[in-house]
Amino acid sequence: MDDLTERTVSREDLFTGKVVSLHVDKVELPNGDIATREVVEHVDGVAVLPLDEANCVYTVTQYRYVFHTPLLEIPAGKLDPGEDPRSGALRELKEETGAVPESLESLGSIVLSPGCFGETLHLYLARGLRMEQQHLDEDEFLNVDRIPFDQLYSRCLSGGITDAKTVVAVLKTKLLLGL
Amino acid sequence: MDDLTERTVSREDLFTGKVVSLHVDKVELPNGDIATREVVEHVDGVAVLPLDEANCVYTVTQYRYVFHTPLLEIPAGKLDPGEDPRSGALRELKEETGAVPESLESLGSIVLSPGCFGETLHLYLARGLRMEQQHLDEDEFLNVDRIPFDQLYSRCLSGGITDAKTVVAVLKTKLLLGL
Repeated sequence: MDDLTERTVSREDLFTGKVVSLHVDKVELPNGDIATREVVEHVDGVAVLPLDEANCVYTVTQYRYVFHTPLLEIPAGKLDPGEDPRSGALRELKEETGAVPESLESLGSIVLSPGCFGETLHLYLARGLRMEQQHLDEDEFLNVDRIPFDQLYSRCLSGGITDAKTVVAVLKTKLLLGL
Repeated sequence: MDDLTERTVSREDLFTGKVVSLHVDKVELPNGDIATREVVEHVDGVAVLPLDEANCVYTVTQYRYVFHTPLLEIPAGKLDPGEDPRSGALRELKEETGAVPESLESLGSIVLSPGCFGETLHLYLARGLRMEQQHLDEDEFLNVDRIPFDQLYSRCLSGGITDAKTVVAVLKTKLLLGL
């Protein structure tokens, strides 16, 4: 394989927010030319597919301001500073749905838009759910639903559900568990 | 379902680049409180899983500067202004791999990080491939490989391949075609 490495020549920090930060770098391409790379940094996150013993899944529907519409997703969120992904997954699952699982299995990690967006998302399957109290953040409004896995799977396969982490977690669960 | 709508109160445009733009908005939450939303806008894109008659897939491996590593992905790219997604998919497939398909079937659309990142990606399965000349952009360096579908599928399921669009397209193809 050819060496494809792009080397940083300079970096300009342009924005630091609560959710994302943005820098624009000059890079040296494999042929020696200089190009510009716009980089959006985002804290890594976790997402959890909570599957109960009746093969139903707890989902969250939130208003996604970027798309001006509510979207159905599996529970997910950003990692706290220094937080290990498994702990973050358990925390987000509990906060958003109240579910506490007996087991938490990795479904691997995904990158979302690797050309410019620096978020890695760690996916988990949670089983053996005990339901406790939900604890939402102050500015978090969401509806929790309990949906049969088969129905969720059909909607992911048909394109009715568009959230990438949800589609990946549902299809991997389908194939790994043979549900 | 509760009304989850967030209404725009004000908008501050902070960056406009070649790939992304960024604005920070004040929004009114369902309870009347005001919150901040950081929004990264990105042109919509297309991605294509090109499957040949021997059940092999053409993949592209590019250096992804954001993650400082090469990543294996299916051919993909941004839509040109006003371009229809099917035309964009055929264009990107031809540019990156040289493949021209007889059929192009929709695998649905995905959103990548709906909390802050406004990209929608339209996915396609291309079959009946005729191989012509590749036409890369000037600053595009990538390696094209031809990989048996089974091998690609195993790597997606195990987590060895992390690119979300690639995982979604491969798992949907597995489930829809029963490969």
